[in-house]
Amino acid sequence: MPIPERVRVHAPATLSNLGPGFDVLGLALNEPGDYVEAEWSDSPGVEIMEVRGDDGQLNCDPTRNVVGIAATAMLAAHDADETTSRPPGVRLWLEKQMPLASGLGSSAASSVGGALAVNELLGGALDRDQLIVSALEGEQAVSGGIHADNVVPCVTGGIVLIRSYSPMELLSLPVPDALRVAVVHPHTSVVTAEARRIVAERRFRITEAVANLGQLGALVTALHRGDLELFGRAISDALVEPLRAPLVPGFVETKQAALDAGALGCSLSGSGPSVFAFAATDDHAADLAGRMADRFSEVAGLDSDTYSGKVNARGARKVEEDE
Amino acid sequence: MPIPERVRVHAPATLSNLGPGFDVLGLALNEPGDYVEAEWSDSPGVEIMEVRGDDGQLNCDPTRNVVGIAATAMLAAHDADETTSRPPGVRLWLEKQMPLASGLGSSAASSVGGALAVNELLGGALDRDQLIVSALEGEQAVSGGIHADNVVPCVTGGIVLIRSYSPMELLSLPVPDALRVAVVHPHTSVVTAEARRIVAERRFRITEAVANLGQLGALVTALHRGDLELFGRAISDALVEPLRAPLVPGFVETKQAALDAGALGCSLSGSGPSVFAFAATDDHAADLAGRMADRFSEVAGLDSDTYSGKVNARGARKVEEDE
Repeated sequence: MPIPERVRVHAPATLSNLGPGFDVLGLALNEPGDYVEAEWSDSPGVEIMEVRGDDGQLNCDPTRNVVGIAATAMLAAHDADETTSRPPGVRLWLEKQMPLASGLGSSAASSVGGALAVNELLGGALDRDQLIVSALEGEQAVSGGIHADNVVPCVTGGIVLIRSYSPMELLSLPVPDALRVAVVHPHTSVVTAEARRIVAERRFRITEAVANLGQLGALVTALHRGDLELFGRAISDALVEPLRAPLVPGFVETKQAALDAGALGCSLSGSGPSVFAFAATDDHAADLAGRMADRFSEVAGLDSDTYSGKVNARGARKVEEDE
Repeated sequence: MPIPERVRVHAPATLSNLGPGFDVLGLALNEPGDYVEAEWSDSPGVEIMEVRGDDGQLNCDPTRNVVGIAATAMLAAHDADETTSRPPGVRLWLEKQMPLASGLGSSAASSVGGALAVNELLGGALDRDQLIVSALEGEQAVSGGIHADNVVPCVTGGIVLIRSYSPMELLSLPVPDALRVAVVHPHTSVVTAEARRIVAERRFRITEAVANLGQLGALVTALHRGDLELFGRAISDALVEPLRAPLVPGFVETKQAALDAGALGCSLSGSGPSVFAFAATDDHAADLAGRMADRFSEVAGLDSDTYSGKVNARGARKVEEDE
């Protein structure tokens, strides 16, 4: 297989902590997403040539930017497994097209983008599992813990359940044809580390765990049955949402507005501040996104970005030259 | 519809707290099970005429035996809903064919038997939801809390997930054709109230809940896919089994023996001491039941009853006169 000189990949945003599925359930969006370009270099190691779209917030040191960490991990995995040679180094360009610290898996998208770009340069020498492992190295470096519910759907597309972290086992769940997602990203910041700390320090009653177990089982059943009403009823989180809701001004009112407008469930994505809701048509999803943005504005004075549409079925991918 | 003078019903044993599904996932067995006979009486209210097979442990006061409590609740529901008349009272005979406090849903079976017997006397006037509600009144009286993962599969058969307790919503899950269950009931006692207390008093880390969420989602997916290997991997409980295992002498070794012999998962049923394992053939299930009984004997000096076979697809039922 000829090794390309230069590649461009797209890695999508993702919803994580989907409803009752804290750390185990994620979903890939069609937009927004990051682009990563990579080319072979005669200088050893990974260089980050440029980062755009980050308002200057990200580091170009490849040991301190997830795109570089994941790319480096991918090269190391290749060198460990393969006897074939490769050029000494890789240059990367990262184009952020999604907000940082938004709850939409920004760091996961950049991690997956870095890992996938290297794999495309290698002619696809490494498999999907290695892509996930390398991307998780990036994700872990910024989040301080392993949670794969952004990285995995970013790689695979669709809706993904993580059965177990050790050993890691992923299950792609069926996505009903009619399912549409609405997302609103209000312009406020949640410190991910703080959002994770309040969950990690909390001790839960068995009844709280039981509530999520019932809902998670129902959510999975709903996807297999293609029952969107049941799916919506199962978007319910007794464990984490109550702890994190206070971190996002206007969340409670925005969620209520979505439910009042017929949303099939509504909750925080990741550690927030982004909020998702589901619908069964494009128009309803777009309407919900708009209503949620309006409510964040009315209640908390926040501007928002909105997205709506189908679940991303492909996951991260190489961008063809004629696109 | 003619009202019968006398009926006989069978209510099966059930596995509850199935693997990761504490309080939300139950399964109906074909054996053992309780028989309840009922007939109309001119004396008002519910009388328990006889209880057999309980070694004298159960009360014949209808307000203190679940069969009477559930039957009384069913009559009250009928009187509230219907304008039709009925004879003033009901006499009940309870024939226990399963061990008490075994973790196999003995009280649920008697509760369901009492409620179903009354409904059959009423010509099936009340629906399945009312049957469940009435049986739960009995179950709740002895367990001190609402948990429906014995009562519901006892009524419906199959494998049942309880999405939510308030409002109660039940989901029947697909049962793969090849699935076989092996059960061993070692002759030791676990005090249900104590087993529930140690779980209710414990506070859990989010990571413990996350572990069960991933496994429960995988278990439900496995049933929909008919993937018995995945089903077996998902029989894993980080929340409750570690707390209750010490209450059952020999459990750890017995579980290991089952897994070593190729069981598709193994765990405690209910609050124990019964232990279940899964297999894909009748012979393997029977072999597993025997091995588990042997191990309980070797390690803890306990005699055991064993059962193996298919999942009960019908649930509680009227016994026809020619059976």
